[in-house]
Amino acid sequence: MRATTIHGHKDIRFTEVPDPVITRPTDAIVNVTASCICGSDLWSYRGENGEITEPRTIGHECLGIVAEVGAAVRTIKPGDYVIVPFDHCDNTCPACRAGYQSACVNRGVTTSGQGELALVNQADGSLVRLDEAPGPDQLPDLLTLTDVMATGWHAAVMSGMSAAKPGGTAVVVGDGAVGLCGVIAASVLGAERVVAMSRHEPRQELARKFGATDIVAARGDEGHAAVAELTGGVGADYVLECVGTDQAMRTALHVARAGATVGFVGVPHGIEVPIRVLFDKNVGLKGGMAPVRGYLPELLELVQTGRINPGLVFDRTLPVEQVAEGYRAMDERTAIKVQLTY
Amino acid sequence: MRATTIHGHKDIRFTEVPDPVITRPTDAIVNVTASCICGSDLWSYRGENGEITEPRTIGHECLGIVAEVGAAVRTIKPGDYVIVPFDHCDNTCPACRAGYQSACVNRGVTTSGQGELALVNQADGSLVRLDEAPGPDQLPDLLTLTDVMATGWHAAVMSGMSAAKPGGTAVVVGDGAVGLCGVIAASVLGAERVVAMSRHEPRQELARKFGATDIVAARGDEGHAAVAELTGGVGADYVLECVGTDQAMRTALHVARAGATVGFVGVPHGIEVPIRVLFDKNVGLKGGMAPVRGYLPELLELVQTGRINPGLVFDRTLPVEQVAEGYRAMDERTAIKVQLTY
Repeated sequence: MRATTIHGHKDIRFTEVPDPVITRPTDAIVNVTASCICGSDLWSYRGENGEITEPRTIGHECLGIVAEVGAAVRTIKPGDYVIVPFDHCDNTCPACRAGYQSACVNRGVTTSGQGELALVNQADGSLVRLDEAPGPDQLPDLLTLTDVMATGWHAAVMSGMSAAKPGGTAVVVGDGAVGLCGVIAASVLGAERVVAMSRHEPRQELARKFGATDIVAARGDEGHAAVAELTGGVGADYVLECVGTDQAMRTALHVARAGATVGFVGVPHGIEVPIRVLFDKNVGLKGGMAPVRGYLPELLELVQTGRINPGLVFDRTLPVEQVAEGYRAMDERTAIKVQLTY
Repeated sequence: MRATTIHGHKDIRFTEVPDPVITRPTDAIVNVTASCICGSDLWSYRGENGEITEPRTIGHECLGIVAEVGAAVRTIKPGDYVIVPFDHCDNTCPACRAGYQSACVNRGVTTSGQGELALVNQADGSLVRLDEAPGPDQLPDLLTLTDVMATGWHAAVMSGMSAAKPGGTAVVVGDGAVGLCGVIAASVLGAERVVAMSRHEPRQELARKFGATDIVAARGDEGHAAVAELTGGVGADYVLECVGTDQAMRTALHVARAGATVGFVGVPHGIEVPIRVLFDKNVGLKGGMAPVRGYLPELLELVQTGRINPGLVFDRTLPVEQVAEGYRAMDERTAIKVQLTY
């Protein structure tokens, strides 16, 4: 098959690689029909996940049609149009039953999602079948459900938000696609006030469209002061950390009110947790990889009923063959998120 | 007055110092009738809170009779027998109203609790009056409500435990007085299984008396394996970190199941939070100084109805004049917790 491969620092290509093969009876192979680039792919692209010693496929957000299933797969069959959560799970182990499918004992991840074929472990537990093949207009929203929308949602849930207890102020740190989806989540989950910290105008605009009631463009001490002013000096009831850097985490902890929890979903890079800050303010920290499969039914319904429209995070679409250009655009922040067509 | 003072590394004395004076209209002065030594006093005793350049009073757990109140104090009057939460609060600011009195904008702390007189800021917000002067048998239980029992309770609450959703396995890391009170809390809040990590027999025995269903004496990898075995390989639903060292935190994070939260109340000393462990397991971290005043009504009722008996953590009583011996005993772990009589 042809697939997106990474060869080194900022070196992305679309090359010929061996087809994935089914090795476990719970596997499936999906013929990818749509995929996209994730902000977390940029860590590898920028060389911040260690040196790349040999080329490998990259990409973990995709939709497609099941091509082949292992002998033990019962509920999914070739020809099914499926959403592929980036993190695969059996959806039956204790971690899955507790709602943490991202810590499934049989966890797998999509590794060739920007290719023509993707291997899925635990097909029965992971894949969500659509009733019919989506039209091109539906692809963007559905693509976000494989990772980014679920990840923004996870940040909100981990911060303690719940539709059962609406109200309060949520601050979203990070205006990447995850942060923007976090704005959607905070809004849908009932925050009275959703503050998006963003200094890029097009992203601010999208944040407003997604439900942000306030924008804080300032960073550092000025940004902290702005949030303090918005909250009457108290701080935010919920904070969503959607970046993964030390600076973002410090801001997140700083703007949280006493007793609030920072839901963090940015893959941590260089974060040193200032535990005395947590202790002094009783500010909690909870997050990690999103249990995409767990959130999928609810999020799919929100998309299908038109309540949310997270596909708007895609501001650029490229043929998959031009994937390298997509990485460059996201790296340079000239695109929020890039969809790849097949 | 006479008060316990710290003069340097392991140098505790009972000396003459100036009486505290009321400087703010919300202050009160309490004539101390009973006090005790806190595990956290040992950080200073051992020189782990920085060098002591000049003698100062020490001690923050006491009961007593109000001697004098400031002009603005309305609900407390001289002669009242009061419980003195170690952290003072106005109990009206947004942090207090959110249940985080320990982050009150007007927070104060008791600083001469092992003396004859203690100054209390925010007397109305902080002090809890007893209907009558307690008898000597009641003093130990009541003394624990000024800090240690509330702190163990806080660890349990911060880990997500609630009487509204009983069940699950709670692991308590630390067998000091706070950890032992954490065992009480986990038991009262309805954990099906309460695992006390302790390798000291008298403490194990007390833990069992307090509701521990299992004891894990092993530490490090062996301790982790023991908890894993007790939980069918899944890990604990609730973890109470009641020490404050890096080792204790690592154990706490290690034994938590995916998605659990570590409630931490040990004052952090040298803890480096392994954020990738949090991220990979979606294990939360939340804790800090206990909002003693917030918990007091509930805990006082539990004590007064005989449902809990946290005063059993005192295994030694000394006249306050012999306070130095009390510190030595707790430092050498020959006493769990020392009560001081007046």
